[in-house]
Amino acid sequence: MNKIPIAILGATGLVGQRFITLLQGHPWFEIAELAASDNSVGKKYGEAAKWQLPTEIPERVREMQVLPSDPAQVQAPLVFSALPTDIAGDLEVAFARRGAIVSSNASPHRMDADVPLVIPEVNAEHLALAEVQTRRLGSAGFILCNGNCTTIHLVLALAPLHKRFGLKRVLVTSMQALSGAGYPGVPSLDIIDNVVPYIGGEEDKVESEPLKFLGKVKNGSIEYADIRISAHCNRVATRDGHLETVSVEFVDKPSPGDIIAAFDEFRGEPQELDLPLAPAHPTVYRREKDRPQVKLDRDAEKGMATIIGRLRECKVLDYKFVLLGHNTLRGAAGATVLNAELLYAKGMLNRAGQKSVEQAIG
Amino acid sequence: MNKIPIAILGATGLVGQRFITLLQGHPWFEIAELAASDNSVGKKYGEAAKWQLPTEIPERVREMQVLPSDPAQVQAPLVFSALPTDIAGDLEVAFARRGAIVSSNASPHRMDADVPLVIPEVNAEHLALAEVQTRRLGSAGFILCNGNCTTIHLVLALAPLHKRFGLKRVLVTSMQALSGAGYPGVPSLDIIDNVVPYIGGEEDKVESEPLKFLGKVKNGSIEYADIRISAHCNRVATRDGHLETVSVEFVDKPSPGDIIAAFDEFRGEPQELDLPLAPAHPTVYRREKDRPQVKLDRDAEKGMATIIGRLRECKVLDYKFVLLGHNTLRGAAGATVLNAELLYAKGMLNRAGQKSVEQAIG
Amino acid sequence: MNKIPIAILGATGLVGQRFITLLQGHPWFEIAELAASDNSVGKKYGEAAKWQLPTEIPERVREMQVLPSDPAQVQAPLVFSALPTDIAGDLEVAFARRGAIVSSNASPHRMDADVPLVIPEVNAEHLALAEVQTRRLGSAGFILCNGNCTTIHLVLALAPLHKRFGLKRVLVTSMQALSGAGYPGVPSLDIIDNVVPYIGGEEDKVESEPLKFLGKVKNGSIEYADIRISAHCNRVATRDGHLETVSVEFVDKPSPGDIIAAFDEFRGEPQELDLPLAPAHPTVYRREKDRPQVKLDRDAEKGMATIIGRLRECKVLDYKFVLLGHNTLRGAAGATVLNAELLYAKGMLNRAGQKSVEQAIG
Amino acid sequence: MNKIPIAILGATGLVGQRFITLLQGHPWFEIAELAASDNSVGKKYGEAAKWQLPTEIPERVREMQVLPSDPAQVQAPLVFSALPTDIAGDLEVAFARRGAIVSSNASPHRMDADVPLVIPEVNAEHLALAEVQTRRLGSAGFILCNGNCTTIHLVLALAPLHKRFGLKRVLVTSMQALSGAGYPGVPSLDIIDNVVPYIGGEEDKVESEPLKFLGKVKNGSIEYADIRISAHCNRVATRDGHLETVSVEFVDKPSPGDIIAAFDEFRGEPQELDLPLAPAHPTVYRREKDRPQVKLDRDAEKGMATIIGRLRECKVLDYKFVLLGHNTLRGAAGATVLNAELLYAKGMLNRAGQKSVEQAIG
Repeated sequence: MNKIPIAILGATGLVGQRFITLLQGHPWFEIAELAASDNSVGKKYGEAAKWQLPTEIPERVREMQVLPSDPAQVQAPLVFSALPTDIAGDLEVAFARRGAIVSSNASPHRMDADVPLVIPEVNAEHLALAEVQTRRLGSAGFILCNGNCTTIHLVLALAPLHKRFGLKRVLVTSMQALSGAGYPGVPSLDIIDNVVPYIGGEEDKVESEPLKFLGKVKNGSIEYADIRISAHCNRVATRDGHLETVSVEFVDKPSPGDIIAAFDEFRGEPQELDLPLAPAHPTVYRREKDRPQVKLDRDAEKGMATIIGRLRECKVLDYKFVLLGHNTLRGAAGATVLNAELLYAKGMLNRAGQKSVEQAIG
Repeated sequence: MNKIPIAILGATGLVGQRFITLLQGHPWFEIAELAASDNSVGKKYGEAAKWQLPTEIPERVREMQVLPSDPAQVQAPLVFSALPTDIAGDLEVAFARRGAIVSSNASPHRMDADVPLVIPEVNAEHLALAEVQTRRLGSAGFILCNGNCTTIHLVLALAPLHKRFGLKRVLVTSMQALSGAGYPGVPSLDIIDNVVPYIGGEEDKVESEPLKFLGKVKNGSIEYADIRISAHCNRVATRDGHLETVSVEFVDKPSPGDIIAAFDEFRGEPQELDLPLAPAHPTVYRREKDRPQVKLDRDAEKGMATIIGRLRECKVLDYKFVLLGHNTLRGAAGATVLNAELLYAKGMLNRAGQKSVEQAIG
Repeated sequence: MNKIPIAILGATGLVGQRFITLLQGHPWFEIAELAASDNSVGKKYGEAAKWQLPTEIPERVREMQVLPSDPAQVQAPLVFSALPTDIAGDLEVAFARRGAIVSSNASPHRMDADVPLVIPEVNAEHLALAEVQTRRLGSAGFILCNGNCTTIHLVLALAPLHKRFGLKRVLVTSMQALSGAGYPGVPSLDIIDNVVPYIGGEEDKVESEPLKFLGKVKNGSIEYADIRISAHCNRVATRDGHLETVSVEFVDKPSPGDIIAAFDEFRGEPQELDLPLAPAHPTVYRREKDRPQVKLDRDAEKGMATIIGRLRECKVLDYKFVLLGHNTLRGAAGATVLNAELLYAKGMLNRAGQKSVEQAIG
Repeated sequence: MNKIPIAILGATGLVGQRFITLLQGHPWFEIAELAASDNSVGKKYGEAAKWQLPTEIPERVREMQVLPSDPAQVQAPLVFSALPTDIAGDLEVAFARRGAIVSSNASPHRMDADVPLVIPEVNAEHLALAEVQTRRLGSAGFILCNGNCTTIHLVLALAPLHKRFGLKRVLVTSMQALSGAGYPGVPSLDIIDNVVPYIGGEEDKVESEPLKFLGKVKNGSIEYADIRISAHCNRVATRDGHLETVSVEFVDKPSPGDIIAAFDEFRGEPQELDLPLAPAHPTVYRREKDRPQVKLDRDAEKGMATIIGRLRECKVLDYKFVLLGHNTLRGAAGATVLNAELLYAKGMLNRAGQKSVEQAIG
């Protein structure tokens, strides 16, 4: 089988590096092009990237020449975007207009009315928006977004509860890892022996994105979920893995056993379709009194699951619990790749991006 | 003036060490006796204690011989207790029965009906319980408690709000420093690159103690405040300083300006009586978007204030904010000393402990 | 093939946990018995051990009952010892006397005249001492030791140099990881934002053990290498991976290219015999100006290699360089297992421990 | 008394911030002007600087307007330079040519033949170079340098030994704090759970600067000391305080008691002249087996001393020991201020900078 050629935008950053490792030996996708900012263009990837991961750069990738982030020079039919926020908006549209399917980790288009914002286990049906979008863009291409790293894990934990019991209010405090700020990101003097109770723009995303994820498709757009969410976002001195303390209020208050069963039994299309990057269990409930913990649980299920624990009664809302998830795997690069796997498995790469794919595979 | 002789119980631990530094050059109190566990008894303090603070052990203290924690062998009329939880209960009663006034940082008696649990700025009037207690004990001595380290700072922030506007519900997530677990406390392998979302017994204290602090004296006992509090307590890799994210709901929702004014203007008896350890401002509201921060703000006002910031609307309750406080100063040793200063300034050391004091000063 | 049953002494500690993970799916060895201290005896392993590794405890191991460290109750013919120093001395002899082959990570017997102290790539020929030892003990069993965690990586880097060019003097400063102190080990308050320039007993080991490793077998004992070594040992706030800065003086000063070639080409019996845990390259020289680094290189070659870099002229001795190695894998548990693999591949388990093995496999 | 007006170049950086706190309430000097890079010029200092210290910015300084680093616009007769390396070279000469005395923490001119490189306790007599320099520059102004942060503490420990016993060879490994790299400096992802065994340009400075510090004035230039020094420089995850392990070889090997006496008794001009920032003891030898430690000792003597410990025989050179010093106080800003205090106390501000000073004080 010919694999689908992939272009990575923002290839030298932390999320770009995760794309590269996730795509090594991928059964369906193959890295064809790497694009990054001007000071990297023309260099070999091995020279352009300050590699951060304990595994080595794959030999083939090390030698690839970095391209500019220009739809005219990057040809692949499927594009993974880890572009910086300030340029992702326009560039991703340009790529979609030239026919590419853009699976994006960037934030600018997440809340656009006809851009699907998808977690495959939660709202695969939102992919229906792609057709609306392709009509608007007048292209076979479109943009598909994953959420913010803190949001994705929150929504993975909330979805099984909302689907079974209905959620009314959610109060979340996050303790977020350093890799969430990219590289160079947080200066060491700002975080050693410190907690910073502020992450620019983060609380807005955590409060708004879940309403779209948990919303319903109605007449080609999304009717947002009717949940009130409040977020406190903090940066702590961990390398990877966002921890969140969550209090929730239900429409119909379930028993603790009902809630744990909802976590234990939660499955979605990635599990049914056996997507390559799908975790066996998207939500894992741990029974120990002091779990999940960042260093012990962030890599569970290859970093693609949300680990939950400490369910107990909350004196203010109904229940409270703790959740943890890997922020650059399921919270970023892994989410982007899983979204693309969903498109592939549902035949949407063929249908929407057919011409591009055919041409590229040639 | 002869200073009042002080005995320190649990003198070799972290809180004990803070007592020693806080009492250096104190205008009213003087360290007379140091007591600790059996393996320290008989040694010089300098040999018995594994000193943790960047200032040196005072020369005189270094040479003092450590006594057993035995009311028969420790004579001082005023006792500061940093005893471990498992032995504090009985021992503190024994000291009170032999006539000592025990200002305690230990938890066992905090919620006892006739034990005053006091933050001098918040509920100095609760000292009225001491008389009830002395009658029960049949002694001139009594026990006076300060709260849990996380609780004290939470209550310092809540008190000005509750007094002006009335609080109904409070949801708090703490990120607590390592010194809160004492020494040796948290193993380094448990916390570097990690967050532990569990601290045994902590959430119960944070949910219950504020109700007593914010309660009213009625007929010789405390009528608890009618507030619902829910706490998530976490351990993070900071040395000192507990950070807390707080969401609050009011009886009468004030404006943000009203709330900040309440923080700015909050004062209590320590400020009126000009107690030696009193901060000029017990609550400090910072206007920067990213403060308070642990490393920058924990030592403000000599570690005796609660620093607050980031007041904003909360989509679940009414408002949310961040607070920070030094856990072994205002949150522990400083609280114990300030409570004793309050007793002194109000003449309660003379009245209640008169015979002991006279005898000890001789 | 029946696998050889293994007993692990000190099974609940950090090194014991590494034994367990290293032996999962091992082609030759199989965990048969787990022993630990009194407060663990009789419990299931999953309850007795405070598991520290991000992989889960293997299901079968979790359910095994912990035995006492008693040669009468632990039957396996091959014993891996991670016993604490204070009890390892006598207990390991007792196990050897009852016929067990003891592959030990403990220090008490390392410098005994007839105990082989082996790094398989460096001095496999020292196994000849085993025969001397069995005669002394009057048993088919014997003790085989690996070195101190800092020493092993130092010796792996020095061996290829000493064999080719002869070493005269070595000055080493270590920056050692927290896991080297076991669990609970170093209190977090002692190491966050700190370096401790003292590790009890460590410098003696680093200065003396290499002389035996690099020595020669002469008439049934070891003639120590004639090298002067001086060590400064420090504890830093890393989880795993000891970094060492090394200056060396040669008998015949080679060129830098000669030295790098010696590192690149170094191989030994583990590579020739293709031992299961052998790294492809026991010494890896990196060309980057800022490597090796703890977080990037400690897991290279499955944690079984020594990573070297920054070779340059030294103004005091001849050359200087940096080395890094995983302290609980190649520096401890991995060393113990590799030593046992060497025995197996050379037929020494069969010869020396035949009766025990036959009986145990039965 | 009118205080001497001071200009600070590079005022917004970490060292600039330390200048500001050190000059609060200084008896002789007063901050008159603050200069920084273009993006700060014209702003109030409180807005331009990202303040890093736990004490607040002094109110007066907060409101001062930041000037450009231009000798035509900065008028003070005495200039403290924390300029970045790449611009310090030319700018400091320009300031000296317009008549300013420049006390500099920057590196470009340290090794210039007629620039005094001074630690007041070690080589105050090197100030004689200033006259040579003023002749060359044709100005009353001149440049006076302090050393690299790691070098200064090394030299403070070596000087008393070299003066008494003569040093031949020195081998040093440093474990340097994050503040040594300035702000933002080291990215947190590069250093948490890591050690970086490379700091660009550092080893050259540590190997060469001491030879000038410990050299002798001969005919208007410095005859370098005849010592061979080799350095390994490493970055570790501490906030402040460089730790160094040192091995030394002597011309005449003293006894350990002789060495400790040399440390205990070491004094210099700052102590004789009672300079405001002088430590009582520039070198402090600690007797504990595990000191100095970064967190416990960096602030001793107001951060202006070098703390030494663990003296013992070295198997490769003669002796080895550990030293620690605060890198941004005695290792940078404190060194610059102390150098200026030395000039003042010796009347060199009056003599050399007289016209400027008179004019400025007006």
